[in-house]
Amino acid sequence: MNPPIETPQEPTIAIGLSVPEAQACILDRIIPLEAEEIELAQALGRALAEEVYANRDLPPYDVSAMDGYAVRAADLTELPRTLQVIEDIKAGDMPRLSLQPGQCSRTMTGAPLPSGADTIVRVEDTRPLENGKAEFLVPTKPATDIRLRGESMRQGDVVLQAGEEITPATVGVLATVKRAKVKVVRKPRVAILSNGDELEALNEPFDPRKIPDSNSHVLMAQVQALSIEPALLGIAHDNPDELTRFIERGLEYDVLLISGGTSVGDYDYVRPTLAALGVTMRFWRVEMRPGHPVAFGTSEHTLVFCLPGNPVSSMVCFEQFVLPALRRLMGHRRLFRRTIPVRLAQAVKSRQGRAEFVRATLSRDTSGAYVATPVASQSSGDILAMARADALLVAPSGRNGLVTDEIAQVQLLETASWQHLPDTEK
Amino acid sequence: MNPPIETPQEPTIAIGLSVPEAQACILDRIIPLEAEEIELAQALGRALAEEVYANRDLPPYDVSAMDGYAVRAADLTELPRTLQVIEDIKAGDMPRLSLQPGQCSRTMTGAPLPSGADTIVRVEDTRPLENGKAEFLVPTKPATDIRLRGESMRQGDVVLQAGEEITPATVGVLATVKRAKVKVVRKPRVAILSNGDELEALNEPFDPRKIPDSNSHVLMAQVQALSIEPALLGIAHDNPDELTRFIERGLEYDVLLISGGTSVGDYDYVRPTLAALGVTMRFWRVEMRPGHPVAFGTSEHTLVFCLPGNPVSSMVCFEQFVLPALRRLMGHRRLFRRTIPVRLAQAVKSRQGRAEFVRATLSRDTSGAYVATPVASQSSGDILAMARADALLVAPSGRNGLVTDEIAQVQLLETASWQHLPDTEK
Repeated sequence: MNPPIETPQEPTIAIGLSVPEAQACILDRIIPLEAEEIELAQALGRALAEEVYANRDLPPYDVSAMDGYAVRAADLTELPRTLQVIEDIKAGDMPRLSLQPGQCSRTMTGAPLPSGADTIVRVEDTRPLENGKAEFLVPTKPATDIRLRGESMRQGDVVLQAGEEITPATVGVLATVKRAKVKVVRKPRVAILSNGDELEALNEPFDPRKIPDSNSHVLMAQVQALSIEPALLGIAHDNPDELTRFIERGLEYDVLLISGGTSVGDYDYVRPTLAALGVTMRFWRVEMRPGHPVAFGTSEHTLVFCLPGNPVSSMVCFEQFVLPALRRLMGHRRLFRRTIPVRLAQAVKSRQGRAEFVRATLSRDTSGAYVATPVASQSSGDILAMARADALLVAPSGRNGLVTDEIAQVQLLETASWQHLPDTEK
Repeated sequence: MNPPIETPQEPTIAIGLSVPEAQACILDRIIPLEAEEIELAQALGRALAEEVYANRDLPPYDVSAMDGYAVRAADLTELPRTLQVIEDIKAGDMPRLSLQPGQCSRTMTGAPLPSGADTIVRVEDTRPLENGKAEFLVPTKPATDIRLRGESMRQGDVVLQAGEEITPATVGVLATVKRAKVKVVRKPRVAILSNGDELEALNEPFDPRKIPDSNSHVLMAQVQALSIEPALLGIAHDNPDELTRFIERGLEYDVLLISGGTSVGDYDYVRPTLAALGVTMRFWRVEMRPGHPVAFGTSEHTLVFCLPGNPVSSMVCFEQFVLPALRRLMGHRRLFRRTIPVRLAQAVKSRQGRAEFVRATLSRDTSGAYVATPVASQSSGDILAMARADALLVAPSGRNGLVTDEIAQVQLLETASWQHLPDTEK
C-alpha cells in the first residue's frame, strides 16, 4: 500500500495499532520532565535526577558487628580461657585503651574496635565472671564479626545513579550520605475532563435519566496511585464553545485525559475541537478489548489521551497507555506493571489480532503456584466486576483464545500488592 | 514445662518466638481504629467502614452497548435490507419516536433503546445510504449489544462491603452511587524515635566519628509508602531523662517505632524506661535473620516496636511486623506483602529454627518464570545492597538451607510493582 503524501494540515493518524505499537507511539514522544530540588522527606517514589556520591567511609572505622568482646585471637588458642575486661565500648564511644595480651573489651554492636583487637567473640559464646573478667568457651578466627571501615561505602563512590526510583532503602542511602535535599524529576501536571450530555456530576442531584460520572473519579484515583494530584476540570457538555473552553484549560497541563468522546459519533465531535486547538491526533482505535476506541494526540506542550466512556475500558486503557507515559515523564525506567505467570483456571476467549485484557482474581494451588480465574462479568460497563479483580490477564493478540491450565501472564493491580497470609513458614 | 504464675508487675515476655508466632502476638492485640468520614477524593487506599448500597439501577434503562442502529430483529430476516433512519439518539438523549416496521434509529454507545427496537446492529455491519436510509448486511439476533436496565447494579444492592480496600475501581463504584463522602477507618498516628549516642542527625554537621541516622528516615519512608505521614521525634541520646521525655511524647501516638536500643546492652537500657512509662514488653528476639533482636510492647493506647539498629534488619522487621500491624489498624484485611514463587539461581544458606530473609533481584527465564538471585552483600548493615533488591526471599525456619533451582517464595518490595517491559505480546 502506498501511503498518501502527508499534508501538514491533516497528518496521518494511525488506526488499528497493536497495543505495543500504540505504547511505542506514545513513549517515543516522551522525555522525562525537568529536575527540581525537594526535601528528602518528600522524595519517596520519585526518580533521582542526579548521581549521588558517598560523603564518608561507612563504617567510619572498624566496628563490632555483634554484642560481644573485642579480643586478640592469639589469646584464645587454648580454651576455655579467662581474659580481663578493661573497658565497655558502646556504639558512638571511642575506645580509650589498647588491648594487651590477656585483655579484652566489651563491645556493643557498632562499637569501634579498640587497637590491639583483631576479632570479636559473641556474648553468647562467653560467660561473665566476677572481678571484671570473662571466660571464653568457643574457638575464634581473626576478623570474625567485624565490619571493616568503608565496607558499606567509601567516600567518593557513586552510591545512586540518576534515574533510580527513590524507595525506602534509597531514602536510607540518601540519609546516610546526608542528603537532606535531593534533585528529582518533577511530577507531571495532569488534568481530567469528562465529556457527555448524559453525565451527572458527583455534586449534582440525582436524575434518573442520567448516568453518574464515575470515570473522572476513577482516573483521578489512578493518577493519585502514582502520587500525582490531578485537577478535575469537570464535565463538558456536547456544545462546541463549552468543549473548547474546557480543552483550552486542559492544554495548560502536561497531560490531559478526556473521558468519553472516543466512539465514532463522539469522536467526530471532539476531534475538530482538538484540531482547532492545535492537537495533532497520533492514533485512534487500538486492537485491544476492552478499550478499542482509545485515541492519543499531542499539542506543543501536552499529551492528550481520549479514553473510552465505558468504565472498565477507560481503566484498562489508563493502565496500558497513560500509566507508562506518566512514569516516563516522572523519569522512571520501569514503566510497566509487574506481571507474573499464572495457570488459567478456565479457558479464555480472544480473537487473533486483538489483545484481550481479562479481569481476574488470583488464588494458589497446592504447590503455591498462582491460578487466575476470570471474574464472572467481563462487561466493559461493569465497574463492580473490575473492583473485584486482582489482575488483568493478558490474552496476546497473536493467540486465538487461551486454554484451561495453560500458563499466561497477568498484570498485578494495586490491590494485589497485598495478600491475606504471610509466607514465612511454607 | 509449667509456666510460672504470672505477676502483674513482671508479665512473662516471650523470647525466641518464630516469625508467625511474633506476628500473631502483635495482630491478636489489634483491632481496627475508629471510622471517620472523608471526601471521596481523599479515599484511595483506605478501608471502607460501612456497607455501600446502590442508589439507582444502572444502566437506568436498556441502552445500546455499541455505536450502531436500534432495529426490530424481525425486519432483518432477509438481507441485505434497507431501513429508514428516523432519529439519531446519543447517550443522554431520550428517544422521541417509536420504531415502526421498516424503521431504525441511529444509536451511540450508551444511548437509550427506543421503544419498538429489540436489538442493536453495529455500525460496521451497515452501510449508510442517501435520503436518510441505511443498508443492513449481516444477520442479527434479538437482544444483541444491549445492556439491560439494572445489569450493572440494582437499586438497594450492597455494592461494597465494610473492610474493602478503596482502589481506583472501588472509587468508581462509590462515584457511581454518588458517594461524595465515605466512611473509612482512620489512619494510625505513628511516631519514630531514634536512639543512640553514636548517631548524627540529618541536619547536624558531619562528624567523622559518628554514624549518620538513616533508620528514622527509612522508617518514615516505609510508613509513607502506606500513605501515613509519621512524626519524626528525633534522636534520644543515652541519657535516662532525655529518653523518658522522648518516649513520653511517643506514647501519645497510636504506634511508636524506636530505632536502636534492641541489642543486649542497649535493650537493658531502654527497657526500664519503657517499663517505667507503663509499656509491657510482649516479645524480644525473634528466630529470624536479619532482625533477631526486634522487640514489641504495648501500653494502654500505643503499640511500641523496638527495631534493630542495623539498617537492613530494621527494614526487614518493619516489613514482617510493623507493616501488617499498621494495615490491621487501618482496617485492611490483606495485611501481608504479596509473595510469588520463584526459582533459585543459587543455593541459600539458612539454619533450621530460624527464618532467613535474603535480599534478592528478580529476572525471568526463557519460559517467563521468575528467577531470584541473592544480591552480593547480605550484610545487615548494607543499606546499599537493600536498595538494589526487588524482593525478600524467604528461607523458612523449617529448612536447613535452600538449594539451587528449588522453588521458594519472595515478598515483593515496592520497587517490584514495576517492570521494564510490557507483557502484551508474549
